[in-house]
Amino acid sequence: MKATIITIGDEILIGQIVDTNSVAIARYLNDAGIVVHEKESVGDDREAIVTALQRAMSECEVTILTGGLGPTKDDITKRTLADLFNCELVRDQRVADHVRRMLESRGIAYNELNQGQSLVPAACTVLFNAYGTAPGMWFERDGHVIVSLPGVPFEMDHLMQDEVMPRLKKRFTLRQIVHRTLITSGLAESMLAERIAAWEEALPPYLHLAYLPSPDKVRLRLSAYEVEGAAVAHEIEAQFDKLYAIIPQYILGYETVTIQSVVHDLLTQRHLTLATAESCTGGAIAARFTALPGASNYFKCGWVTYSVEAKHAQLGVRLEDVARYDVVSEEVARAMAEGARQRAQVDYAVATTGIAGPTGGTAERPVGTVWMAVAGPCGTTAVCRQSGKDRGQVIDRASGFAITLLRDEILRQEELRKKKN
Amino acid sequence: MKATIITIGDEILIGQIVDTNSVAIARYLNDAGIVVHEKESVGDDREAIVTALQRAMSECEVTILTGGLGPTKDDITKRTLADLFNCELVRDQRVADHVRRMLESRGIAYNELNQGQSLVPAACTVLFNAYGTAPGMWFERDGHVIVSLPGVPFEMDHLMQDEVMPRLKKRFTLRQIVHRTLITSGLAESMLAERIAAWEEALPPYLHLAYLPSPDKVRLRLSAYEVEGAAVAHEIEAQFDKLYAIIPQYILGYETVTIQSVVHDLLTQRHLTLATAESCTGGAIAARFTALPGASNYFKCGWVTYSVEAKHAQLGVRLEDVARYDVVSEEVARAMAEGARQRAQVDYAVATTGIAGPTGGTAERPVGTVWMAVAGPCGTTAVCRQSGKDRGQVIDRASGFAITLLRDEILRQEELRKKKN
Repeated sequence: MKATIITIGDEILIGQIVDTNSVAIARYLNDAGIVVHEKESVGDDREAIVTALQRAMSECEVTILTGGLGPTKDDITKRTLADLFNCELVRDQRVADHVRRMLESRGIAYNELNQGQSLVPAACTVLFNAYGTAPGMWFERDGHVIVSLPGVPFEMDHLMQDEVMPRLKKRFTLRQIVHRTLITSGLAESMLAERIAAWEEALPPYLHLAYLPSPDKVRLRLSAYEVEGAAVAHEIEAQFDKLYAIIPQYILGYETVTIQSVVHDLLTQRHLTLATAESCTGGAIAARFTALPGASNYFKCGWVTYSVEAKHAQLGVRLEDVARYDVVSEEVARAMAEGARQRAQVDYAVATTGIAGPTGGTAERPVGTVWMAVAGPCGTTAVCRQSGKDRGQVIDRASGFAITLLRDEILRQEELRKKKN
Repeated sequence: MKATIITIGDEILIGQIVDTNSVAIARYLNDAGIVVHEKESVGDDREAIVTALQRAMSECEVTILTGGLGPTKDDITKRTLADLFNCELVRDQRVADHVRRMLESRGIAYNELNQGQSLVPAACTVLFNAYGTAPGMWFERDGHVIVSLPGVPFEMDHLMQDEVMPRLKKRFTLRQIVHRTLITSGLAESMLAERIAAWEEALPPYLHLAYLPSPDKVRLRLSAYEVEGAAVAHEIEAQFDKLYAIIPQYILGYETVTIQSVVHDLLTQRHLTLATAESCTGGAIAARFTALPGASNYFKCGWVTYSVEAKHAQLGVRLEDVARYDVVSEEVARAMAEGARQRAQVDYAVATTGIAGPTGGTAERPVGTVWMAVAGPCGTTAVCRQSGKDRGQVIDRASGFAITLLRDEILRQEELRKKKN
């Protein structure tokens, strides 16, 4: 069973919005075993909509459209669909009553434009939109299903969940799609591929492997399309278990696990506390941890000591060390971590000092040079990592590197203490 | 001049990633006067790539592809392009040297897979990728230009800016596309449309109006395609000036300015300095400012005082005030802002204290309750804002509210001082 997703709107083609609707729709379809064959975005243009839809219908059994259903003149999806399916627009009284009530409760006039929201092509089944004024529409034509949904994300989402998916599951006999993703960290994509080449070679042919590299990790996804789900899910688990045996130290976890969620769990389980002392990462490390529910159990204090004076006054970094070693140096990173650990009275503190750019780089310390340090109960460790050239990239990668160093140090110092005892 | 954007990767079709590359590419093309006719996403599948590309070439002069250029087996774009353009893969020595140097500097082995990154179709012009291992490729065929770019966003971005756009501008004679967006707030889409109906009706036919509603605003975009830019830009300004006369109280401003970029400019132009004292926003405010190049000119120090002890020890919040008024209170927000301003010796400090959730809410102070304060040379102002229910939403909205308060206070205190003098 194949589907095409068509998103409609000039704002997509000019790059004014990021299309998240098609992401949500793709997930719903995949979860139900429907393969998304293609995603397409076209403008608010009759010919483009018709062409895209006719092609989608020639290739797939299901087409989901979003967008172009607003009350204003630039939205033409509904009129276009009525013409394509040779029918008139007729008033749906349930929708009309709903729109009137909804607007009145918000103090919005029920004017001519809003009244148009309850006109629907006579050939469609109305999918009632409890959360907005534009109803969804379900068409069937020569064995094909065509669904048109409003572009407002949460209205689309409710309609997909409450109306479209139950109907698709009833209308078609669906098999399953299984995706499972393992997150690795610490091996570049090419080195990872080399290390697991024999494993990859031995995968059953119906399991498809994909590498998804990003700055601080490589995701490995195994997918199987239109299969018997339970057996395949079991097979994928078995394959990932084999991988654990090959590269145990590089595996972070499954699906959406992040390096900060790993450290979050480590700190929480061990009742350890944390402070951050950031310069070039500018609060990004603190923000990553504090975005996680429960962070207040271990996160005590963070500093963003951007100026030398702040590093000195707030964290006790010695001005003569800055003068002697530079503010981007092992000594300053160590002093920041140790100062933060001592002043916040925590078990661990992580620090960064570097050059985020675009200016400030030198031949010796180019943009992207970042010293990072972790201070813990068994001492302080510092490393320097080249973290990229672009400001956003430097902040992001250095944050990831520093949190990875923190994880490594928590585990290393735990081992050290075990040996001592 | 028309273009198609094709993004390649199974991860797009299964909804594992949000496609931001096509947004960035669409902006570059629009800025240069190239109309994006369609965006399409296909899987890592030879037939799908070839079909999409051939169709794009039949409809448009320019096709930009991204993705599928990694070193691993699942990435097949390069091989597919070589076959489609009937040529061999040949080694590009400059790319080979660059890949080797880049990997060696990061301590990554230069193995067979990486060596494959310097193989390119003989028919292409290599677009040198200084930021990654996968080069861009430029093909010309029967008057069409086909460009293949890596899917890593910042590598794609640098290649679009430094290589693709200059070449497209040289290769084609381009007219202009003008988009200008006005942001309105406080009027529902249908009411807005009614209020400005006469204005909309009187627009010159070559100006296309679009409504882009979202929960807290409606954006109005005027677009003109393939025109003489200067005259049209002038006409659009004149049209928006007329709108100002019709709905002055509902207009917020233009385009995509963010509240932090507004404050960044205010602080920079006035040579003012800033500190942050965050609790529930957890470093997100500091991170928003420090993400902007030049932030070090005004951003001196930030605190993420998550625990009561940190608020007391680092910012001088009195424990008896916490006990008497609660840690989420006007008094604590004021003390945090004033403590940060004094300790960092800055002109302005902004503080937040609230309940980000999911736990910690009470009947009196439910999740989303955030007190925020700004301390400046003419005193301190505090407000309480309900900032949502979801943890991420609370952090994001409270950060925005706090930065808005900071802007209002900078302007208000500036007026106060002017009046005093």
